[in-house]
Amino acid sequence: MSIKAQTLKGFRDFLPEQANAREFVVGKIKETFRLFGFEPLETPALEYEEVLAGKYGEEGEKLMYRFTDNGDRRVALRYDQTVPLARVIAQYPEIPKPFKRYQVQNVWRAENTQKGRYREFLQCDIDTVGSESTVADAEIIACAVAAAKRLGLAVRVKINDRSIFDQLGLNKSEIIAIDKLNKIGEDGVIAELQEFKTADPGKLLTTLKSSGKTDRLDQLFSFLESFNLKENTDFIFDPTLARGLDYYTSVIFEMEVEGTNLSIGGGGRYDNLIGQYSGQNQPAVGFSFGFDRTMEVLQEKGLLKENSSSAKVLVTTFSIELGQESIEATAKLRSSGINTDMWLDANAKLDKQLKYADAKGIPYVVIIGPDEAKNGTVTLKNLSEKTQETLSLDEVVSKLG
Amino acid sequence: MSIKAQTLKGFRDFLPEQANAREFVVGKIKETFRLFGFEPLETPALEYEEVLAGKYGEEGEKLMYRFTDNGDRRVALRYDQTVPLARVIAQYPEIPKPFKRYQVQNVWRAENTQKGRYREFLQCDIDTVGSESTVADAEIIACAVAAAKRLGLAVRVKINDRSIFDQLGLNKSEIIAIDKLNKIGEDGVIAELQEFKTADPGKLLTTLKSSGKTDRLDQLFSFLESFNLKENTDFIFDPTLARGLDYYTSVIFEMEVEGTNLSIGGGGRYDNLIGQYSGQNQPAVGFSFGFDRTMEVLQEKGLLKENSSSAKVLVTTFSIELGQESIEATAKLRSSGINTDMWLDANAKLDKQLKYADAKGIPYVVIIGPDEAKNGTVTLKNLSEKTQETLSLDEVVSKLG
Repeated sequence: MSIKAQTLKGFRDFLPEQANAREFVVGKIKETFRLFGFEPLETPALEYEEVLAGKYGEEGEKLMYRFTDNGDRRVALRYDQTVPLARVIAQYPEIPKPFKRYQVQNVWRAENTQKGRYREFLQCDIDTVGSESTVADAEIIACAVAAAKRLGLAVRVKINDRSIFDQLGLNKSEIIAIDKLNKIGEDGVIAELQEFKTADPGKLLTTLKSSGKTDRLDQLFSFLESFNLKENTDFIFDPTLARGLDYYTSVIFEMEVEGTNLSIGGGGRYDNLIGQYSGQNQPAVGFSFGFDRTMEVLQEKGLLKENSSSAKVLVTTFSIELGQESIEATAKLRSSGINTDMWLDANAKLDKQLKYADAKGIPYVVIIGPDEAKNGTVTLKNLSEKTQETLSLDEVVSKLG
Repeated sequence: MSIKAQTLKGFRDFLPEQANAREFVVGKIKETFRLFGFEPLETPALEYEEVLAGKYGEEGEKLMYRFTDNGDRRVALRYDQTVPLARVIAQYPEIPKPFKRYQVQNVWRAENTQKGRYREFLQCDIDTVGSESTVADAEIIACAVAAAKRLGLAVRVKINDRSIFDQLGLNKSEIIAIDKLNKIGEDGVIAELQEFKTADPGKLLTTLKSSGKTDRLDQLFSFLESFNLKENTDFIFDPTLARGLDYYTSVIFEMEVEGTNLSIGGGGRYDNLIGQYSGQNQPAVGFSFGFDRTMEVLQEKGLLKENSSSAKVLVTTFSIELGQESIEATAKLRSSGINTDMWLDANAKLDKQLKYADAKGIPYVVIIGPDEAKNGTVTLKNLSEKTQETLSLDEVVSKLG
């Protein structure tokens, strides 16, 4: 009797090829975060429901995974990494400020799977808490751009300041409508604004689009130049950029792949959220990578190809009698720092072993037959070039190392 | 009004110092796993309850986090990484065998928090599926030992073969009693065996302790020598080693820190578990690091000290006028690959900035005052040695890079 072997709907396994690529990308992103002086934070998957409830608007209330745990406590699964950060800031007042942290963990949302959305996905966030400075805003943006560049992506950053909306007296519904400009176009937005009884939607849009930069934005654009990224990156002032989340208070930004409308992340300044926990306001600014989207773009652009298998060589096993030789060769390659797989069974035909290497994308194969064993050599096969040569093991080490 | 800012009972935050150390250790462990040809697998946090139910014995049934999700499905949080692996093997028959995978993800168990146990913890597993070979057993042990060594730990591996218990006709309760030998001593085990109505518990223990190696164990010990680790590692045949989990079928092992009784991981061969999902038996062998225990040991032995902060230098900001110079110096250090933090506000006293660096454990500080700006130099302070020198930025790069 076999048990249902199935991933839960809306959830995914990442088999080695994908998992390898994910680890590679996460590694590059974390490297960049560290380069900019951000340090890691990990928070638990589960929080008291009360910590998360009421922070994510209507949609969040609907999509949050909540349940009663074995001890009758109401708990919820991490929905984003910003609210847990706010909880951390309040819980540990001793943390030195400004607190620059990165966090790379999964979040869970009961999204509609019919739209191809996943219910568990990785977020890669940086946030600076405890500084009002525009330098902090610029540093966050510079760091996000540097991470994208390190992955080989050219990007463009759209930037706005929500205080422009305040100056024009826009209410929340109006901001949400403007946020859809890219999706539904100008006419769509005007139609929505009419529903909200906006007096003259067309004029409002025109006024908005002709808005100038605020003082903070002027400063920000100048700091971004000093951060020395300008050569390859467009920083664009876009007064219609709104971003959905309620909690942003001034500067907001969105990072797009150059030459497309694809956003691979965004963020902004939120100076009032953390105070809800600590009772004491803490200015903050952050950026979050849309990791799945980033992976898709890297895939499409062929920027992940080199990282699909971790083993560089497979040491085959010719026979039971020669098993020992294969183990010793394997041990030597590994102690030289070469990622090495080895064939584990003594009774398989060489052909089967070569097929295994091929299926796993392992580029080289070492063969130790009776002749090789006698002469103290090995045969090194290059599977993609279909070539082979007889070498000493030391020569293999220097070739592959 | 402030919201409760508290971690859920039995759960932990990892603030930067700990999180840095954890990333360092996970990195070393994964590096070793890759060196041995294991490849990453990620499975979802949530599974259908039916996939996990009935696999972990009585305790597992009690400690598993289960709930009804928003779509009325019965789901459960990952309880270990072996059962999800078994599900993956059944779900994707196309995966090439042997399948050597590593998996480093959190698991959740509603443990008794009064005993200081945590309800979310990291597991670092390697498993080889699809080979019956003793070489596979040896490779798993060799890989675990190599990972411990890479972390600076000397270890000892106790090894046994469960078929010895079968030969002596031991039942499950008797095995569980013997498993407690280290905790409750010989008298304690004998007392428990008497409760289970074992005929002559004392004689049973004596017979067990004088058991010889099985053929498989003889082979295994010889392969372990070939894997070339023997010099620093004791491999000990211990016929009383039982390990609790039901599903082990033959070879089992436990890794202890040399000179202590502390186990930092263990595993064994389980040839019948995967068949429950696929309907088709798949031999398998695996090892799991007790990550928390490993971290504790590394901490006690002072093997984590060097990795408490990721930033190597803080660039201070002398004044608003000199802010630009500080940003440009920061950008240059970062583009040279040096992890660099920068002070973000223009109005803080230098003393406050130095205290911040000190609190974060950042070893160096760069100061650019009016003199330095005029001369194109910077002052580099070494905080622990309390020394400082005047250098060009290029000199700082070569000193810290």
